[in-house]
Amino acid sequence: MLGLYDFGLGRDQEQRAKDLHEKAIVIDGLTFKDGLGLDYPKDLERMRIGGITSVNYTVAHFPHNFLEALKEIDKEKEGISKNKYLCFAKSAKDIRKAKNEGKIAVVFGFQDAKPIEDDLSHLQTFHDLGVRIIQLTYNAQNLVGMGCCERSYARLSYFGVQVVEEMNRLGIVVDLSHCCDETTMDAVDVSKDPVLFTHSGVRALCNAYGRNKTDWQIKALAEKG
Amino acid sequence: MLGLYDFGLGRDQEQRAKDLHEKAIVIDGLTFKDGLGLDYPKDLERMRIGGITSVNYTVAHFPHNFLEALKEIDKEKEGISKNKYLCFAKSAKDIRKAKNEGKIAVVFGFQDAKPIEDDLSHLQTFHDLGVRIIQLTYNAQNLVGMGCCERSYARLSYFGVQVVEEMNRLGIVVDLSHCCDETTMDAVDVSKDPVLFTHSGVRALCNAYGRNKTDWQIKALAEKG
Repeated sequence: MLGLYDFGLGRDQEQRAKDLHEKAIVIDGLTFKDGLGLDYPKDLERMRIGGITSVNYTVAHFPHNFLEALKEIDKEKEGISKNKYLCFAKSAKDIRKAKNEGKIAVVFGFQDAKPIEDDLSHLQTFHDLGVRIIQLTYNAQNLVGMGCCERSYARLSYFGVQVVEEMNRLGIVVDLSHCCDETTMDAVDVSKDPVLFTHSGVRALCNAYGRNKTDWQIKALAEKG
Repeated sequence: MLGLYDFGLGRDQEQRAKDLHEKAIVIDGLTFKDGLGLDYPKDLERMRIGGITSVNYTVAHFPHNFLEALKEIDKEKEGISKNKYLCFAKSAKDIRKAKNEGKIAVVFGFQDAKPIEDDLSHLQTFHDLGVRIIQLTYNAQNLVGMGCCERSYARLSYFGVQVVEEMNRLGIVVDLSHCCDETTMDAVDVSKDPVLFTHSGVRALCNAYGRNKTDWQIKALAEKG
């Protein structure tokens, strides 16, 4: 059995963290495929000890087109339904319920808008299936915008603007973690709802090839609510 | 029966154009779907009277993904095979043969790289099926580059560079007619083979919302061979 102590915290710190996490709803900004413990039970054990309430779980990313994303969603839902420590969450209510039952609420997210392909109606399908977070690009260019590791940078495409508007309408949160600076700031402007950097560092501290966010992006995110 | 005279040429001009076209191999840079006369026989009659030897015929463009493009190719091949004035061309030899036989040699082209989707191997499939010209973008952003009517402009993506290299290897000509300035100049640099503007005007004479080509782009094209 692991304790927070095993992650390098002193015993006092461990107790304080445990107390805090016991009271709070703690949301892990992103866990990648197979990081949920479905294949690696030790990771899930660590999340439970750490007092995680809910997690943005990546069910699709850059290799997946529309049909492949549907298959991933099916597969992951089945894995969650078979695991007594997990439940599938589509709303804040589901997350609060998980907290009361001592389970981890899994929110489905994409790390790339590529599964939308060129069809806005796919967003309705993904929403109906429970997807609640979509990162607009991974590291590369897609039909929506530009990733942080491309040969040049650009704002959202016209299609990208439609995608953000439709996500706002449906209630799918816009995640900008891997987007380039221009796409990031443009999406903050275009989105009517608050947006997320679910897994980005601070560029002032570490550049990470443009992957982390600038101070003015972080301020713009905060101002968006 | 129409004559060139019906298109506004004087009778002398008509005779000189006829003489020239009778000797020359005349290639129409682009004819769009259903412009070949398969649905509109009058257009085909005009092409025959005009002495057209061969045509870059758009079999797929921005609405088409990989599977849809395959269907379009099948459909158009069938239409050509049933028309006594047309033949399907995959090489310069096929075009010369058509000239000798008094037929119009139809070369298959795309007006968007979108049917490639994210899979370079689709280029081999399209080449095997006879596609010999692919325009890298239509007016919008795709996975390869940026069209001339987007919200912002950029060079080829990393995937776009791979696409151009693979097209060079296979012998599919790069067409840049609808690409934005940055993608156009970048592709001229990246391509080892000559590239085409199959249907673009001169921007110095008519801007057409950035759709036509600048003098320096036209010079770069000429320098590429």
